[in-house]
Amino acid sequence: MRMYDLIKKKKEGKELTKEEINLMIKAYVNSEIPDYQMSAMLMAICFQGMNDVETAELTMSMAKSGDMVDLSSIEGVKVDKHSTGGVGDKTTLVIAPIVAACGVKVAKMSGRGLGHTGGTIDKLEAIPGIRLAIEEEEFFSIVNKVGVSVVGQSGNLAPADKMLYALRDVTATVDSIPLISASIMSKKLAAGSDCILLDVKTGSGAFMQTIDESIELAKRMVAIGEHSNRRTMALITDMDIPLGYGIGNSIEVIEAINTLRGKGPKDLTEVCVILASNMLHLAGKGDLEDCEAMVLETIKDGSALNKLAQMVEAQGGDANFILDTNKFDKSKYSKNIISDKAGYISHMNTEECGIGSMLLGAGRETQESILDYSAGIILNKKTGDYVEKGDVLAVLYGSDEDLFEKAEQVIKEAYIFSDNAIKNRPLVLAKVSKDNIEKY
Amino acid sequence: MRMYDLIKKKKEGKELTKEEINLMIKAYVNSEIPDYQMSAMLMAICFQGMNDVETAELTMSMAKSGDMVDLSSIEGVKVDKHSTGGVGDKTTLVIAPIVAACGVKVAKMSGRGLGHTGGTIDKLEAIPGIRLAIEEEEFFSIVNKVGVSVVGQSGNLAPADKMLYALRDVTATVDSIPLISASIMSKKLAAGSDCILLDVKTGSGAFMQTIDESIELAKRMVAIGEHSNRRTMALITDMDIPLGYGIGNSIEVIEAINTLRGKGPKDLTEVCVILASNMLHLAGKGDLEDCEAMVLETIKDGSALNKLAQMVEAQGGDANFILDTNKFDKSKYSKNIISDKAGYISHMNTEECGIGSMLLGAGRETQESILDYSAGIILNKKTGDYVEKGDVLAVLYGSDEDLFEKAEQVIKEAYIFSDNAIKNRPLVLAKVSKDNIEKY
Repeated sequence: MRMYDLIKKKKEGKELTKEEINLMIKAYVNSEIPDYQMSAMLMAICFQGMNDVETAELTMSMAKSGDMVDLSSIEGVKVDKHSTGGVGDKTTLVIAPIVAACGVKVAKMSGRGLGHTGGTIDKLEAIPGIRLAIEEEEFFSIVNKVGVSVVGQSGNLAPADKMLYALRDVTATVDSIPLISASIMSKKLAAGSDCILLDVKTGSGAFMQTIDESIELAKRMVAIGEHSNRRTMALITDMDIPLGYGIGNSIEVIEAINTLRGKGPKDLTEVCVILASNMLHLAGKGDLEDCEAMVLETIKDGSALNKLAQMVEAQGGDANFILDTNKFDKSKYSKNIISDKAGYISHMNTEECGIGSMLLGAGRETQESILDYSAGIILNKKTGDYVEKGDVLAVLYGSDEDLFEKAEQVIKEAYIFSDNAIKNRPLVLAKVSKDNIEKY
Repeated sequence: MRMYDLIKKKKEGKELTKEEINLMIKAYVNSEIPDYQMSAMLMAICFQGMNDVETAELTMSMAKSGDMVDLSSIEGVKVDKHSTGGVGDKTTLVIAPIVAACGVKVAKMSGRGLGHTGGTIDKLEAIPGIRLAIEEEEFFSIVNKVGVSVVGQSGNLAPADKMLYALRDVTATVDSIPLISASIMSKKLAAGSDCILLDVKTGSGAFMQTIDESIELAKRMVAIGEHSNRRTMALITDMDIPLGYGIGNSIEVIEAINTLRGKGPKDLTEVCVILASNMLHLAGKGDLEDCEAMVLETIKDGSALNKLAQMVEAQGGDANFILDTNKFDKSKYSKNIISDKAGYISHMNTEECGIGSMLLGAGRETQESILDYSAGIILNKKTGDYVEKGDVLAVLYGSDEDLFEKAEQVIKEAYIFSDNAIKNRPLVLAKVSKDNIEKY
């Protein structure tokens, strides 16, 4: 096998075989294929695509390039969840404890934030004392005992994905559905769960801007998961508006805790209930209606919140923060953003809301940026709301007042006004399973 | 300017500006752009193409990456010729002296063979004593005195092309018409002639297999030349059959000399007369008919042959070899290839004929291969001929008998037989000038 021939084959729109894909990924990870050949291949894939079988083989080769986590020492069905990322997306913090409280194991490896917003691991770090770099044995034992553990990804999870992602990032080959699917799913397959629920975000705060693109991506990822014998399903959820009101690290942890108490924002609560119900359903806990009833019960009876506290404690964190959110550090400064016009908010540029929060210190501008855990934004008004001139649109939080001016400008410009009332679209826009696509 | 943005732009099918192309080539030559970004760009160009203006700017940037030869110290109009390469293509050895004998200067820089056949420089090296690495000053002075000189390309002619070609060669990005055009024309523009005649070969022995592709390539190259104020024209000539009967180095020099004596193969003579007439016409020596009469006269009166002898002598070679071809070394061994069937030859896989010759030592299998100047093939039968069983199809020459078996097999398989007589297509299939495409 010569890499030249494989590039030529893909360039001509032909299908690569399982063996060719396997050898290619192995050789690339071993530095036997130079970056200049791989980047030509990636660009050819951007133009010619890959079919479901090729994509599944690529994903499996990437997963197998590093450790394949073996979760068999954890009893019962293990279910994982992945979100393609958005602004104010703290769903993992809510859903993982709920699902565990319903008796399904969640052994979750999460990433840090790549772009403007923090990842789940960044958010959890706002809890004093919590350990997120945990060795496998202890990780398994926490899941067996508590039912849930969320830890950082180990260094050797799908190293081929790390290498390919770094190359795609500098060669304008990121936006290819087969490559995105393979990147996400390689880590999910390596992480070892039996069932995978995918939360594909769509809209101005997401990587995929349209519903159709999001469905395409979801179809691919579901096909990959099922090809590897994982029960896989995807929900397409709205990211044309920030989820909940809080954007930041401790701000989002507090909002997640409130949601587990039954006192969270309506949209966040609704999305979390649907995602959690579908995870339980995937894991074989009954029909969707029954699963939803179970989910609501764990919120009502406090067992989900309790699960989060147990997990935090098992990972060395101070569980009192979960039970009393007043313990979280307050940011040194805050500033109200006042509306200088009246009208209905017809749209929010959601990515800009994330950037505003990053500018305050809640996200990483570069890989080396140090996070300010208490920094961020609490929105007061969102799409669909009516605003009077002089109303507070949002409140900025941070430990450096000098950062407020730029962030205020960005957030203000993210609000688009209209004279007419608008109706928000549903929070869950479509559901993609192995044999079915349902649009709502 | 970030290379990432340029890759993205081209990937999306947008036009790169003159400034962007210039900066990109400059930065690449200075190693400020890594190969992995350039190969992604090259692949994007393969898919999205480049328009005439972009291609011309790319060509000019590549030409300007090294020395731009200034031929102004040579009096009169200077005309250059480029062939896209084929099997048995010894036209430069015939045409350059003819054109010079008609009073138009030819200051030609030629390359070595890249693929299976030797280049003009390799062929000339078969003449004992000849110097082909000649400094500019002496080169100019020979052209001023004799009217013609053919030398090897200087090391610093279009270095961007050398770098890009090496990268394209290993990333399956060779077959892009804008990239091929830019590669050829960058060297022609840097070499400094006022007029450029392009001989675009088409058929089984050429890079371009169909007439339409060849015309596309010709149109591009003519547009580039004219964009840079060089009078440029292209002829599309047949390479579905080897040109002449000889393939090899001294074998081709001898056939070229015979052609200059008026005793060459009919097809080679016809193509050379047409190419030379068009070069003179391009250089302003009158209408095509007058130019053809001049060309024929230089063959008839021996002035063209004499010009070749003068050039060889001026470059330190032994001109007696030109006047008496018996002086060339004979190869140690020869072998007749006998036909084991009867019938009409309906087609010859021309590339395979070149490969057969290479296997005997006449071409380079790798860049390090040492040429055997007397090795090669003299064809006895070509497409259109009738063959009896037992007839000699071709004669192999070489200094290593062990190489004959494989070469014989390749050559034998290159001959395709039919029961029916066939008519060869015209040798010149189309003519492409600035405003006109004529198909014959």
